[in-house]
Amino acid sequence: MRWSQAHIPTLRDDPAEAEAASHRLLLRAGYVRQLTAGHYSLLPLAVRVRTKIIAIVRDEMDRIGAQEMLLPALHPAEPWRRSGRWELMGQEMFRLRDRRDAELALGMTHEEIFATVARELNSYRQLPQQWYQFQTKFRDEPRPKGGLLRTREFTMKDAYSFDLDRAGLDVSFEAYHGAYTRIFERLGLPVLAVEASSGTMGGAGSTEFMCPAAAGEDLVVHSPSCGYAANIERATAVLDTVEDGPGPPAPEPFDTPGVRTIEDLARDHDAPADRQIKTLVYVLDGRLTLVLLRGDHPLNEQKLVDATGAADPRAAAPDEIRAALGALPGSLGAVGVTDLPVIADEALRGRRAMFTGANRDDVHLRGVDVERDIEVGAWADLREVAEGEPCPRCAEPLRITRTIEVGHIFKLGDRYARALGAEVLDPEGKRVPITMGSYGIGIERALAAIVEVHHDDRGIIWPTAVAPYQVTVVVAQSNDDPTVAAGDTLYRELLAAGIETIIDDRPERAGVKFRDAELTGIPYRLTVGKRGLAEGTVEITSRSTTETQKVPLAEAVPHLHTLLP
Amino acid sequence: MRWSQAHIPTLRDDPAEAEAASHRLLLRAGYVRQLTAGHYSLLPLAVRVRTKIIAIVRDEMDRIGAQEMLLPALHPAEPWRRSGRWELMGQEMFRLRDRRDAELALGMTHEEIFATVARELNSYRQLPQQWYQFQTKFRDEPRPKGGLLRTREFTMKDAYSFDLDRAGLDVSFEAYHGAYTRIFERLGLPVLAVEASSGTMGGAGSTEFMCPAAAGEDLVVHSPSCGYAANIERATAVLDTVEDGPGPPAPEPFDTPGVRTIEDLARDHDAPADRQIKTLVYVLDGRLTLVLLRGDHPLNEQKLVDATGAADPRAAAPDEIRAALGALPGSLGAVGVTDLPVIADEALRGRRAMFTGANRDDVHLRGVDVERDIEVGAWADLREVAEGEPCPRCAEPLRITRTIEVGHIFKLGDRYARALGAEVLDPEGKRVPITMGSYGIGIERALAAIVEVHHDDRGIIWPTAVAPYQVTVVVAQSNDDPTVAAGDTLYRELLAAGIETIIDDRPERAGVKFRDAELTGIPYRLTVGKRGLAEGTVEITSRSTTETQKVPLAEAVPHLHTLLP
Repeated sequence: MRWSQAHIPTLRDDPAEAEAASHRLLLRAGYVRQLTAGHYSLLPLAVRVRTKIIAIVRDEMDRIGAQEMLLPALHPAEPWRRSGRWELMGQEMFRLRDRRDAELALGMTHEEIFATVARELNSYRQLPQQWYQFQTKFRDEPRPKGGLLRTREFTMKDAYSFDLDRAGLDVSFEAYHGAYTRIFERLGLPVLAVEASSGTMGGAGSTEFMCPAAAGEDLVVHSPSCGYAANIERATAVLDTVEDGPGPPAPEPFDTPGVRTIEDLARDHDAPADRQIKTLVYVLDGRLTLVLLRGDHPLNEQKLVDATGAADPRAAAPDEIRAALGALPGSLGAVGVTDLPVIADEALRGRRAMFTGANRDDVHLRGVDVERDIEVGAWADLREVAEGEPCPRCAEPLRITRTIEVGHIFKLGDRYARALGAEVLDPEGKRVPITMGSYGIGIERALAAIVEVHHDDRGIIWPTAVAPYQVTVVVAQSNDDPTVAAGDTLYRELLAAGIETIIDDRPERAGVKFRDAELTGIPYRLTVGKRGLAEGTVEITSRSTTETQKVPLAEAVPHLHTLLP
Repeated sequence: MRWSQAHIPTLRDDPAEAEAASHRLLLRAGYVRQLTAGHYSLLPLAVRVRTKIIAIVRDEMDRIGAQEMLLPALHPAEPWRRSGRWELMGQEMFRLRDRRDAELALGMTHEEIFATVARELNSYRQLPQQWYQFQTKFRDEPRPKGGLLRTREFTMKDAYSFDLDRAGLDVSFEAYHGAYTRIFERLGLPVLAVEASSGTMGGAGSTEFMCPAAAGEDLVVHSPSCGYAANIERATAVLDTVEDGPGPPAPEPFDTPGVRTIEDLARDHDAPADRQIKTLVYVLDGRLTLVLLRGDHPLNEQKLVDATGAADPRAAAPDEIRAALGALPGSLGAVGVTDLPVIADEALRGRRAMFTGANRDDVHLRGVDVERDIEVGAWADLREVAEGEPCPRCAEPLRITRTIEVGHIFKLGDRYARALGAEVLDPEGKRVPITMGSYGIGIERALAAIVEVHHDDRGIIWPTAVAPYQVTVVVAQSNDDPTVAAGDTLYRELLAAGIETIIDDRPERAGVKFRDAELTGIPYRLTVGKRGLAEGTVEITSRSTTETQKVPLAEAVPHLHTLLP
């Protein structure tokens, strides 16, 4: 490709709207343009990188025997209703009606649709099957942001495994785990494989592949000592024990004028935070629910969602709370509450002589025995782990790292197969639902994550495996015919050698070309200039090391060949 | 790939719902399954063919210097409103609203969105640009049918050219014309390049690439003598001349009881059809319009749409007609009508002494001089050409052939660039709108068209360039270990030789495997059987010629190598 004919609209300055490094650099280096919030046009350089990422993912999918398919992006409502996710997906699912007024949805994911295709399987002898596709997913994100990191429309490689039973699923799951490890390694993405929440996917467990990056939106809790790693939505830690006194035979109210917070009560009434019960009020799918935690423990909302299966959780508003409990936040408690569901964090189990609000403004209770005095409907792990707490495996202090989710694999079990009627005959001739797994990688997010990991203040530094071109030939003096001719010859030789090359033949100063070469992140720059040619040399500059080597003209192509994989 | 592990759900019988050969065979051979009307899942064999088609199209696009991009599939309403197509596209455009109630549409095509990206071009020096993508298009077809031939969701290669002026566009257009010719040749699709209606696309002309096939929905009018070819929506023919008498000074009414049709009037009142004026009533975007043709000439509705720019044409209902004209169809005419627009076919120009309805039931007029007696608002070519009429170029009899549209290229001009503000500075420093062209190929329709052209009563016959596998190794006796081992060895040798191979290792009778090999259309079958092995031979069968050759075991792979490109 000739740069003069290519559409690579590099920008001189950082775009104001971009915070994440990948967002800023992909805009500035002419890779992407926003059409509207959450929807990006991929320009030619980005498409070249995307194509390479897809080729690597496809290669590893094929290597584990997966077969590529392509299922529709626009779905009838019916399979989504059968799985129960038509409602569960809420506002995140784009919905529409066709000219016959039939309800449709844009696919956010494809468990239901692949399960529909799997109905045609009929014997355990056909299992396992591994099916995958590269298909656009549409998600009406509340806050699309970070350029390609969180969009409303993106390409996903989604794969689905179909096994006779859980043992088969475990084998499939391990195969994808291995494939994902190889994929991210080939893409140049360091990842932590972590325990994760399965969210709306359901099932028996899931593993996320998390790439540490400042622009990440997910927190991973991990122990450098033993390798324990979990999304903060799932992570646990060893709990410090708190000694409770025996406490009185019944809760005792006491006046607490002006007390509004855990800290107020601790300071003014000798009630340490770890001896308080924090009472939060949530509206879960329309129903007011009390959520109890230890005073010093924060709630992780995803844990609450996972524990309750709520599709649409939100904190209750003060007027809703007063109407239900007769008090405002600051004096709330669950003692004596019988008409609302109560869910309590495991850390409160067995606790006695605790403090909590009395559901009267400016009054609290002391001497609360949680199991004696509160009708706890459900116990769950709800608290969010904090940095430095002891690892649940090795007891060493936990660390918390900001990460980007680049892959997520799920053991689904038979939920979707049951709902959609995907069954096979087992060896005994009995009809059983197929056991499924699902496995996703967001392609454009992976592209952005690579930029997050591989850049410096001058621009992107592509790993050669995904670079849009391997070499850019920079003609330093475009007005000097012999230099232009020498550049052209090298360009043609590089192409003939099978090296993906672009030649910067624009009538620009060398400095502009150098700047764009660095900005766009092409691994090697071959500079052809008047002075070098006079002594029969050209320069090869590595984008990653920034080192420049002078090589004889005739050795330039063979030398680049040795540098490239 | 091993057939025993692949998902190739062939069917023993023809599916009842399929009429088109490609629909029937792609279902039966296990290539596609319908999710819902107009939406198909592509199974592994279909994805392999699709990937090859895409690679060929991409190769030819790259060859003419086009750059691949990927623009969003979900569009904001704004660019569509600016071009005027938000309304024009009517019910065929899928529309929806996001969580913020913003109006969105699923892309039917991408002129507006590419023009948006082209706003970043700013100088004639950056032109020409050729940009393309492979992107899903969504169209709410009133009648999806024929399997992959007409769907609501499909992959399109759409390309757009950006030139400074019409002369530049002509050069770009020719480049795509050449690329398309090569693409269809490589895909094994015979095509006619024909003059076409530009429909809702607008612009200065378009060429369709039409593949003759029984399942086609488009009629092409062509002259085998001179090569003239046009879609019936555009085609013209030499008009036979009719001698008119001088006629009376004014139209004369006469009673025509019981006359309802052109034929009635001709038979009962000595009024030859070619001396009658046929009066049709259409509702064009809500406005009643009289459409006049010669009595023996049928209307082509697309010509009416093209002539009037109507977005939503329909024939008027009898009650609407009576309310407006005071008579029912059978006695309609345009003489004296001043309150409704009248559009007349060119064949009526200058005609005198004609017959037409009097807008009174059972009364007609004779002696009508079209230009004297009727207020014709617009003249246009409206009539549909008939088989055997003289070619407008060579005057030889025209033929009409049923075809599938596999490609369509448009000279758009500056309509979209003007609407979206895509302008550059010309050499004189003046801002001018960019001149655009657009160029489309439906990928899955091309796949189906290949099947329409290449099949027999036993199944598909893929050209090697697009076959999902080149060779299927059929192990005739799956229960005979030496045969299985010999098959496996050949399979591995073929893979090592870079030949895409599937091995049919299923525990089925040889007859079943032969049938599936023929049905799925794999170009070469390599049969490994007990009897042949005893004498050291295997059989190679060509799907296209159906000929079988016995070759020594050791020569099988080299022999197949010579057969394949």
